[in-house]
Amino acid sequence: MYLEQEIAEQPVALQRLLSEESGTAQRIAAAIRDFDPAFVCIAARGTSDNAARYAQYLFGAQARLPVALATPSLHTLYQTPPNLSRALVIGISQSGRGEDIRQVLQDAREQGALTLAITNDPDSPIAQTAAHHLPLQAGPEVSVAATKTYTAQLTAVALLVSVLVGRDELREALARLPGYVSQTFTEHISTPLSEPGWVERYRYMDAFATIGRGYNYATAFEINLKIKELCYITGDAYSEADFRHGPIAVIDRGFPVFVIAPAGKTLPAMLDLLEQLHQKGAELLVISNEEATFAHARQIMRLPAEMPEWLTPIPAVIHGQVFAMRLALVKGHEIDRPRGLSKVTVTR
Amino acid sequence: MYLEQEIAEQPVALQRLLSEESGTAQRIAAAIRDFDPAFVCIAARGTSDNAARYAQYLFGAQARLPVALATPSLHTLYQTPPNLSRALVIGISQSGRGEDIRQVLQDAREQGALTLAITNDPDSPIAQTAAHHLPLQAGPEVSVAATKTYTAQLTAVALLVSVLVGRDELREALARLPGYVSQTFTEHISTPLSEPGWVERYRYMDAFATIGRGYNYATAFEINLKIKELCYITGDAYSEADFRHGPIAVIDRGFPVFVIAPAGKTLPAMLDLLEQLHQKGAELLVISNEEATFAHARQIMRLPAEMPEWLTPIPAVIHGQVFAMRLALVKGHEIDRPRGLSKVTVTR
Repeated sequence: MYLEQEIAEQPVALQRLLSEESGTAQRIAAAIRDFDPAFVCIAARGTSDNAARYAQYLFGAQARLPVALATPSLHTLYQTPPNLSRALVIGISQSGRGEDIRQVLQDAREQGALTLAITNDPDSPIAQTAAHHLPLQAGPEVSVAATKTYTAQLTAVALLVSVLVGRDELREALARLPGYVSQTFTEHISTPLSEPGWVERYRYMDAFATIGRGYNYATAFEINLKIKELCYITGDAYSEADFRHGPIAVIDRGFPVFVIAPAGKTLPAMLDLLEQLHQKGAELLVISNEEATFAHARQIMRLPAEMPEWLTPIPAVIHGQVFAMRLALVKGHEIDRPRGLSKVTVTR
Repeated sequence: MYLEQEIAEQPVALQRLLSEESGTAQRIAAAIRDFDPAFVCIAARGTSDNAARYAQYLFGAQARLPVALATPSLHTLYQTPPNLSRALVIGISQSGRGEDIRQVLQDAREQGALTLAITNDPDSPIAQTAAHHLPLQAGPEVSVAATKTYTAQLTAVALLVSVLVGRDELREALARLPGYVSQTFTEHISTPLSEPGWVERYRYMDAFATIGRGYNYATAFEINLKIKELCYITGDAYSEADFRHGPIAVIDRGFPVFVIAPAGKTLPAMLDLLEQLHQKGAELLVISNEEATFAHARQIMRLPAEMPEWLTPIPAVIHGQVFAMRLALVKGHEIDRPRGLSKVTVTR
């Protein structure tokens, strides 16, 4: 099973990326400082779009750069590309082969924008279209469900932002990331990865929700997508704030909710939400490194203590990847090639 | 039932907005031209966030302005507001009372951004914080589920963009909008609105998906939210492109999918998707004004023929509002005050 292997490879893959691409990130950061973009625009689809959601918070909070998510259909179907000439435009794609993402980069480059591709294939059309390329160094990913390339995308964004803002505190925390990821596997996830353990309980789960906020808004979306892709179950992903604006109505006794609530700025709001969900009788699956969040949790997925909130999306999503793989195995699904999906989706 | 009345009021409400606020829109458009923003940033939650999704396509396609959706938690929880000084920053809120949205506008205004509020209450904190205000003129909305204020938000955005780009073709089409909306009610929706008709069939529907692209990406999200709020059913909203990147795996025989596929630039891609969904045995509920899309439809929700694609989200969402209300009635739910929700959600 490639999926199991690719999930397990993550500490090594992320270490390789950090070791080999720091120089590349430095050069790209220098180009960004020169260009002085008014904002960042990111084009991505599927899992890579969740990496874009993470980038939105990281660029915003650390580099104070607002981030727009691109609207590729304006470039392809409508052929009315917005004016991106004052933007840093980033295309994120595992394969580097999404034609719509490539088109956004091409239009942006012709308009005079600063362009960057983040892909796992330096020879891909997307990597070749952008002025700069930051390679993921994740090695080939065979399983259709993206795992190590997702955490590599987050790490690539974290590397770029940390050299761009040039604060030692960020760079030092990032250097500890592969250690945090290893620790998640060795201390907080049972082995072997393919053994279901408590996941068996969710064999007949027919709906679920995932909730995060800030940096982990992306994690809520990505865990949601992994469960959907591998287990064929309908689920919703929300920010804690949006969730209270309507969707909370669907929560009933026993409804499974994944809550990503690490220590940090979002904690008070997430604790309040956990209490509200508990009162509605929701079944809570909590990903955190803060004891208080586990008070009403049916399942606990621990993150390394003491790690900074901005890096928690990487170990947090790994818990979700393992959950989704285990549940797919419990349900008897083919995990490397889920039904109806192909590895490369070339949207036009 | 306020909800039924508020849904029915939409042709009148939209006509009032267009008649009374054209001058306001002209003044705001002049301020935007003077400011020459590098991009637009929109802060909104819940239903208003879906209006922001529509604005993203309309500003992009017609005014060539890229649109970012704001990340309010960077302004509130993290207290690291991104630099919005080169942006037009728009806060959209029915009540005008979301504290996080107000904070985004205040930070943006202090940074030197051009700020605009679009609300249904000129005396609200959000309206008072922005330099400009475009009132929705929808009259009081009592039902918790927003209906007429949503279509008024779309219309306000359409009004602003059409005067900003100053093309007669857009202004003339917009003047016909209240007529298209009336026609949708008189010709394409059975009366009385509270009679279920074919909606009865969905009494035990326990999951669903909604799919649109381009201008109607927002419609997919808003119909999804209405069904969730009023009927308490889990559902997903997707762009046609993202849907193929994973979530299509959940589609099985009989799975209900709402597809918004009007005539226009997105039609070929949507027709292709409809064919694929049909082959998987999905139950298709199609909102369109193009006969070809109805080939495999179990339910047909017609839009006025000949209307331009960029205005279709307004009659299209009305079909979804009526569906959600009827299904809630069929299920015996209280429609004006769904469980667990309040009209004003003051996120911090």
